[in-house]
Amino acid sequence: MRAEHETAVPPDLARRREEFYARLATRSIRPLWTEFRHLVPRSPHRRLVPALWRYDELRQAIMEAGELITAKEAERRALILENPARPGEARITATLYAAVQLVLPGDVAPAHRHTQSALRFVLEGEGAFTAVDGERTRMSRGDLVLTPRWTWHDHGNETDRPMIWLDGLDIPLIADLDLGFAEHWPEDRQPLSRPENDSPMRYGEGLLPDGYRADPASASPVFNYRYARCRQALLAAARGGPLNPWTGCRMCYAHPGTGGWPMATIGPCLQFLPAGFATRPLRATDGRVFVAVEGRGACLLEDGERLDFGPDDIFVVPNWTIHRLVAEDDLVLFSYSDRPVQEALGLWREERLEEEA
Amino acid sequence: MRAEHETAVPPDLARRREEFYARLATRSIRPLWTEFRHLVPRSPHRRLVPALWRYDELRQAIMEAGELITAKEAERRALILENPARPGEARITATLYAAVQLVLPGDVAPAHRHTQSALRFVLEGEGAFTAVDGERTRMSRGDLVLTPRWTWHDHGNETDRPMIWLDGLDIPLIADLDLGFAEHWPEDRQPLSRPENDSPMRYGEGLLPDGYRADPASASPVFNYRYARCRQALLAAARGGPLNPWTGCRMCYAHPGTGGWPMATIGPCLQFLPAGFATRPLRATDGRVFVAVEGRGACLLEDGERLDFGPDDIFVVPNWTIHRLVAEDDLVLFSYSDRPVQEALGLWREERLEEEA
Amino acid sequence: MRAEHETAVPPDLARRREEFYARLATRSIRPLWTEFRHLVPRSPHRRLVPALWRYDELRQAIMEAGELITAKEAERRALILENPARPGEARITATLYAAVQLVLPGDVAPAHRHTQSALRFVLEGEGAFTAVDGERTRMSRGDLVLTPRWTWHDHGNETDRPMIWLDGLDIPLIADLDLGFAEHWPEDRQPLSRPENDSPMRYGEGLLPDGYRADPASASPVFNYRYARCRQALLAAARGGPLNPWTGCRMCYAHPGTGGWPMATIGPCLQFLPAGFATRPLRATDGRVFVAVEGRGACLLEDGERLDFGPDDIFVVPNWTIHRLVAEDDLVLFSYSDRPVQEALGLWREERLEEEA
Amino acid sequence: MRAEHETAVPPDLARRREEFYARLATRSIRPLWTEFRHLVPRSPHRRLVPALWRYDELRQAIMEAGELITAKEAERRALILENPARPGEARITATLYAAVQLVLPGDVAPAHRHTQSALRFVLEGEGAFTAVDGERTRMSRGDLVLTPRWTWHDHGNETDRPMIWLDGLDIPLIADLDLGFAEHWPEDRQPLSRPENDSPMRYGEGLLPDGYRADPASASPVFNYRYARCRQALLAAARGGPLNPWTGCRMCYAHPGTGGWPMATIGPCLQFLPAGFATRPLRATDGRVFVAVEGRGACLLEDGERLDFGPDDIFVVPNWTIHRLVAEDDLVLFSYSDRPVQEALGLWREERLEEEA
Repeated sequence: MRAEHETAVPPDLARRREEFYARLATRSIRPLWTEFRHLVPRSPHRRLVPALWRYDELRQAIMEAGELITAKEAERRALILENPARPGEARITATLYAAVQLVLPGDVAPAHRHTQSALRFVLEGEGAFTAVDGERTRMSRGDLVLTPRWTWHDHGNETDRPMIWLDGLDIPLIADLDLGFAEHWPEDRQPLSRPENDSPMRYGEGLLPDGYRADPASASPVFNYRYARCRQALLAAARGGPLNPWTGCRMCYAHPGTGGWPMATIGPCLQFLPAGFATRPLRATDGRVFVAVEGRGACLLEDGERLDFGPDDIFVVPNWTIHRLVAEDDLVLFSYSDRPVQEALGLWREERLEEEA
Repeated sequence: MRAEHETAVPPDLARRREEFYARLATRSIRPLWTEFRHLVPRSPHRRLVPALWRYDELRQAIMEAGELITAKEAERRALILENPARPGEARITATLYAAVQLVLPGDVAPAHRHTQSALRFVLEGEGAFTAVDGERTRMSRGDLVLTPRWTWHDHGNETDRPMIWLDGLDIPLIADLDLGFAEHWPEDRQPLSRPENDSPMRYGEGLLPDGYRADPASASPVFNYRYARCRQALLAAARGGPLNPWTGCRMCYAHPGTGGWPMATIGPCLQFLPAGFATRPLRATDGRVFVAVEGRGACLLEDGERLDFGPDDIFVVPNWTIHRLVAEDDLVLFSYSDRPVQEALGLWREERLEEEA
Repeated sequence: MRAEHETAVPPDLARRREEFYARLATRSIRPLWTEFRHLVPRSPHRRLVPALWRYDELRQAIMEAGELITAKEAERRALILENPARPGEARITATLYAAVQLVLPGDVAPAHRHTQSALRFVLEGEGAFTAVDGERTRMSRGDLVLTPRWTWHDHGNETDRPMIWLDGLDIPLIADLDLGFAEHWPEDRQPLSRPENDSPMRYGEGLLPDGYRADPASASPVFNYRYARCRQALLAAARGGPLNPWTGCRMCYAHPGTGGWPMATIGPCLQFLPAGFATRPLRATDGRVFVAVEGRGACLLEDGERLDFGPDDIFVVPNWTIHRLVAEDDLVLFSYSDRPVQEALGLWREERLEEEA
Repeated sequence: MRAEHETAVPPDLARRREEFYARLATRSIRPLWTEFRHLVPRSPHRRLVPALWRYDELRQAIMEAGELITAKEAERRALILENPARPGEARITATLYAAVQLVLPGDVAPAHRHTQSALRFVLEGEGAFTAVDGERTRMSRGDLVLTPRWTWHDHGNETDRPMIWLDGLDIPLIADLDLGFAEHWPEDRQPLSRPENDSPMRYGEGLLPDGYRADPASASPVFNYRYARCRQALLAAARGGPLNPWTGCRMCYAHPGTGGWPMATIGPCLQFLPAGFATRPLRATDGRVFVAVEGRGACLLEDGERLDFGPDDIFVVPNWTIHRLVAEDDLVLFSYSDRPVQEALGLWREERLEEEA
């Protein structure tokens, strides 16, 4: 790629330049000016596209996977939702990963830890468990369960029904930063050192232990945010004040020790739109993965594309993509994005557009 | 008061000094050296004493007050618990105030606001309300209700039974800093602009509104910390880990947007000691007011004094006073102190002593 | 003091109330309602008054003190400037202390430490030293030297001329909080463990040591803020932007590790007003002690009082007092107040008034 | 890539799996288990290599560029130092960019702004200028000049000698996050609204403007950190305490309003090693670009490779690469890395190794 300003260069000069560039290349040196517009673009490259996966198809696929491989054999039996514009990269947005995971009765997803942070949003099932750093929690539909960076975690299912959840991880970000570390626990399951659900009860009720101080980059000790309670808070907020024209009522899961995001790299939200509500057009620099938890609706995109969704369908709106959300029913949406990273670096932007005529 | 080093001063020099001091005094100037040991003491002056008020006596007194004055006439029908060593100063510790307040059926404690911050810990009754900045909450026994600095607040009781609570305020601190401002609402009750209990539901379930950022000195938007939930968190914490030898299991009420104290000047805590547990001797620079919420026990003081307490009794341990807590039954204690102020100024100290032989 | 609402009480009820109050008093209980307006005032009590001390008189007095007592005998040879409205309390504002201190050639002001924080602003002399936690700094006129809470400090003078400075301490605040601790070093002078002026050079040039993290309540490691440099920054700021109508150009000394106040309890400022400039009327909740470093001017007070000042004169504007500053010459003012305390507690207020007609 | 656990799969099952994967691929779904070890590696991939560029060669090349293209034509006349392991990617570490830039007498590097942040470390010349948001600073050898994200900036040279500096930018990071925005000022040079060097003088002397509060992700207003002063602080720190066995004396450039890094994405440091000093082996997750400012030395790498360097040579140590620094002379090193990003996300790690036998 060459910038237009070079077009009028006299042939001799152009030749001398090319010869110069060739000499530089042997010494790992390259001119900036031939790359400038590519390296410093006027706006994001938009290399990713919106996409939607229907839950019934995802469910069918992951159940088929359940017949083809065990959780232990797979380490994690999960199907990655890849952005159609970037096949083979295991990324759904510029920095984030999404997958659906199945844990069958009797499954063992063995204990490991890694620098990648993960969230799990439960789509189906009741009572399978995740263990994090010596403590288990039982999971229910709509629960948000965190396994933050470098925490030992394993999953299991002692019930008689499958559990399916959405995995959200920062795998592409950690790969781009080249910060991946991982360790495997010598046994399938880590030992338990605290009562079940201890941390959510201890840290999630408005009290904190005497002397507790949380580092700004730390992860929330509340590793299971129960849907019943979060839904109640969301509906209270929706009822108690005016809706935001661009987001309806959007709440962010929070770290009780900082008031900030529960993990430093992935920002989960829960959002309510009443039946009939349509948001004004919005775009933001964070790419966002959505799950329709309750209700049906549509996501209208800038080029006229329309993603219709119902319960448990998963869709992605990449960064800096103008979109609107339309609620057919009372709608509850879960979503996550890399906004915490962008905010920490002072780079997050949002553009609120007015309704087109 | 003269320091010992002056005792050997030759008479002539002593006379010249006195003459000098006298001349200075007329110009609002005074020597430091005659006051140094008084102004810069080796340890806190300990001008306050421990004390206990039995709830049955407090209840009898405040019910008698209910016959002698209306809430509206009184502005607030409250009886101040004064430290016996400082009568007439309305202080129970160096910086804090305590009172019991009665709100009878039909009472109106009119709307006002002031720079003093207040907490209410409910001792008796069910369903009377506090309104804070346009929003009401119904109160139950054990609830911690906040009316932080400069928030409009009023109280009422539309039930058929009295409600009695403990008031904790920073009145002496604000007086010493000479920062008292107050305003009275033109009507008895402020207008309501949000549904009942909106803020505790909106901010107290692990979510926060999109874009919410709390200033470090701000007050918690959760203005009713429900006892049922706080007790559950306290018992989870007590069950999930070892007890602290000096405090048992002590949890601090927290601001969901900062993880810090819910108000900048008063730090409330909830504490559990299992039956038979006795803490090791402790002293701290914050003076602390206690309420026995559940169970019976004793506070043993450094000079052999012993305060035996049962449910709803109120006692005070002044700053820098060595004390131990002994649980006869499973014990739940509520307490508050000025530790947030001392921590903000980098001045809080605690001394953990070993068991005496 | 009784509130007006009691005036119409029927005699019998009034008698019953008095009898009730008398019974309560024996149990350290007092009604709130008889005290309410006193305890919760509509605005600050304004118990302090503005005042000015001329430097020539202060100098004469402290030099006379130099003949009457040694620094070692006095521990610190300082004359306290007391607010005329509160004689005997060693306070110049509600929470702060001011004094002038003399260190004569050969003097030893012995090493001690205390929870009170101190600043020294040099009025006269060149080259006397302060040592703080193992490190000395030589002092010059206009330098701001800090001896923060609980740091070992001593002063000496190995030059042949006296040094005089202003001491600013938080003695009244620490007394009201009852947080005074002090220790005396066994010898007159503490041992030195770092080169002279190490900390100001290490922390004051825009670099910080790798891994250094400062607690928000910590004190600045730069314990000598040199006048030459501070003056340069002040004049750059005055030149580079519009003057503030209420404060001219006011800069705050800063902690390089936090950007906040250099000590948690005392906030020092340096201020420039060009010749002929007069500020609009202002009042704030912090009480402020001023030193005229360069130039002559006047402080106009709300009741028509006028404090005319010249170089090294010291004056005080108590909290919530409307005042204006008028510069006869180009004016540099040093000042300090308790604003850091009030900000940390969320209680600082400032009222910017328009010019009266 | 397939993980070893699949090797023993029965042929029929393997075939069914492949058929399943093929069906998934058409729907933008991919199994995690075939990619797991690649996506979640045990330690960083180490895709980059150490490298060194000699200043005499860089100087010769950039001076030749000065004959082949004007600054205005080039937008910026800079030669990118590319990591030899990743040609064509304009990255020297995983997330950072380095280049040498030449500004000839009379040059105009036109005004623009972009979300990429930049630092300039001056290698040669005296008195060329950078303008940032309406304010110019004259640059000297060793000065660190910042043009943080989204600040308008242009460069010029009104002296009679060329200036050459090192550019450090976060171009690869911003590209990976897809956060690139840029705007071009309509004229070559932005208008000036403040006196020259106003901000460094205003914010860099230990005072801050009254009311100034810096956001944690904000950039330092001191946009020129003068070498003379930084060197003085570095030498004071080296003299005043013991050297760190792994880093000698390393200081970090700091934001005066936060005490943190001066920009959110790039962390600059200045480091001193006395002649003869050799550090112990160290590795860290941040990749670091070094400039030898004063003295000669060597960087010893884990595989026996050795980079010998002298003044103005530039070398890179990629992330998680064990290395030692050896000082032949008294050595001053400037360096920058992406540690601020990693710290903000809680992911920075350092491993301090003992001397091998």
